[in-house]
Amino acid sequence: MKKLSYVDHAEEWVSQFSFYIPIKVRFSETDMFGHMNNTAPFIYFEEARIEFLKSVGMFGDVSSKAESVPVVGDLQCDFHQQIYFDDQLKLYVKVESMGRTSYDVHYLAKNQHDHVCLTGRGRIVHINPQTGKPVEITQEIKEQLTTV
Amino acid sequence: MKKLSYVDHAEEWVSQFSFYIPIKVRFSETDMFGHMNNTAPFIYFEEARIEFLKSVGMFGDVSSKAESVPVVGDLQCDFHQQIYFDDQLKLYVKVESMGRTSYDVHYLAKNQHDHVCLTGRGRIVHINPQTGKPVEITQEIKEQLTTV
Amino acid sequence: MKKLSYVDHAEEWVSQFSFYIPIKVRFSETDMFGHMNNTAPFIYFEEARIEFLKSVGMFGDVSSKAESVPVVGDLQCDFHQQIYFDDQLKLYVKVESMGRTSYDVHYLAKNQHDHVCLTGRGRIVHINPQTGKPVEITQEIKEQLTTV
Amino acid sequence: MKKLSYVDHAEEWVSQFSFYIPIKVRFSETDMFGHMNNTAPFIYFEEARIEFLKSVGMFGDVSSKAESVPVVGDLQCDFHQQIYFDDQLKLYVKVESMGRTSYDVHYLAKNQHDHVCLTGRGRIVHINPQTGKPVEITQEIKEQLTTV
Repeated sequence: MKKLSYVDHAEEWVSQFSFYIPIKVRFSETDMFGHMNNTAPFIYFEEARIEFLKSVGMFGDVSSKAESVPVVGDLQCDFHQQIYFDDQLKLYVKVESMGRTSYDVHYLAKNQHDHVCLTGRGRIVHINPQTGKPVEITQEIKEQLTTV
Repeated sequence: MKKLSYVDHAEEWVSQFSFYIPIKVRFSETDMFGHMNNTAPFIYFEEARIEFLKSVGMFGDVSSKAESVPVVGDLQCDFHQQIYFDDQLKLYVKVESMGRTSYDVHYLAKNQHDHVCLTGRGRIVHINPQTGKPVEITQEIKEQLTTV
Repeated sequence: MKKLSYVDHAEEWVSQFSFYIPIKVRFSETDMFGHMNNTAPFIYFEEARIEFLKSVGMFGDVSSKAESVPVVGDLQCDFHQQIYFDDQLKLYVKVESMGRTSYDVHYLAKNQHDHVCLTGRGRIVHINPQTGKPVEITQEIKEQLTTV
Repeated sequence: MKKLSYVDHAEEWVSQFSFYIPIKVRFSETDMFGHMNNTAPFIYFEEARIEFLKSVGMFGDVSSKAESVPVVGDLQCDFHQQIYFDDQLKLYVKVESMGRTSYDVHYLAKNQHDHVCLTGRGRIVHINPQTGKPVEITQEIKEQLTTV
């Protein structure tokens, strides 16, 4: 795995993932070079993040609560291996660091040969939907996210 | 142009379109055979339909009004010519027939060589968002849609 | 189920499906009204069709053979029920009628409550990739497609 | 504009963009919160990058040449402002730094109010399509990319 700004120790970082969703690369997600289109990982990341949030009982919560809504602050993805139509990926997700009003979500995809093909991360910020300003994440939510 | 169930006289039908939007086929909309993916036309149809509705002053209206919301009842598309990355299309749209609670929207795409490459249609039904039942389209809306 | 031009007897038609793939409606496939975007069914149809072709040993075949390539001639979809984020669909697919150079593929989606929410069909034409002209479908392929 | 790891002096960085393409946020690119889906920027980035490459006479070239093919090494995007359906963006693109076998492409999106709403970057690596190994970028290509 190449050196990544968001990973200190590659082996340790990889070993700390446990939650994942299966992804099958769709025909409509390939481009005319036969590769997975480079916008597809972000669709997979989102799907994995939402499933993770649901698994800790958070997704329904945050979408209906008026006081605080999670929005994407930034997103990044590193491409380690070409991915092709019909590849079977395991898309891992974990919460890496918890701040006062935001937290980092990290991503890892392995293909059917157990090779790392994608890594990534992105910051989720909790904002007040009326003012657009960041709001503090409650202790309860912090615990739900990090005690997995 | 091949025979289509929704077109009586091809020449006349084609000549009755006037509103169109320009579409450039995106790289991410091609598949690994180098063709436009066959799901892309429906994205183009939707974009053309919305621009048409805005052009007659209807889109903002219908989305904010609680009494009546337009939903897609059905959609169809015929592929007349292969479409490739970077092709420049003119995507024409018109309202073809007006019913009590719904109307048909017809679509036509010509490429940069003025060849018909896509045709299609779909029914838009006005429903009550609370009950999900079809509601009558007001005379005012009917006039906006058909006097173009 | 409403009356459909491509269905003679609704009950019989529904009962003849057996092959299906599971589909989970992605967050990125919803629009700002909270509904599944109306372009998503065609992505699901394609995925189901390809999985079906693979299940009868045909997908790898046709994509690598130079003499004959399958292309989409037309596509249509009827929306019977609103579909929402996270709905779990069963997307059924079958070959309905076999012609000399083309065949019809029919689609049916049921949601987690076993309600029919989408139906559809589309013609697949086998063409010569060099000339673009339709070519006869071999007896072998016909048998693979219809003896499921 | 918030502090970004890939930007030294924000004002200078912004002022160095000149090439852009117009983008209109599609209805199908919004999600059920009414925002532009967070996967859409990467579609826009790709479209802008390809148009830029075509403007310097490079896109046809690289895709047909067997010796060297450009692939995405990584991608990142920062979200500075919420983006909504029908927003009109200017998507700027420039080559920021040129290496031996790769170069960085930077992105900037401003909305119709001239506010910075997206920034981003990504590394493009030239590889040998047979071996998958990075190959040196020719002096000619380097000049095409950087003398804009």
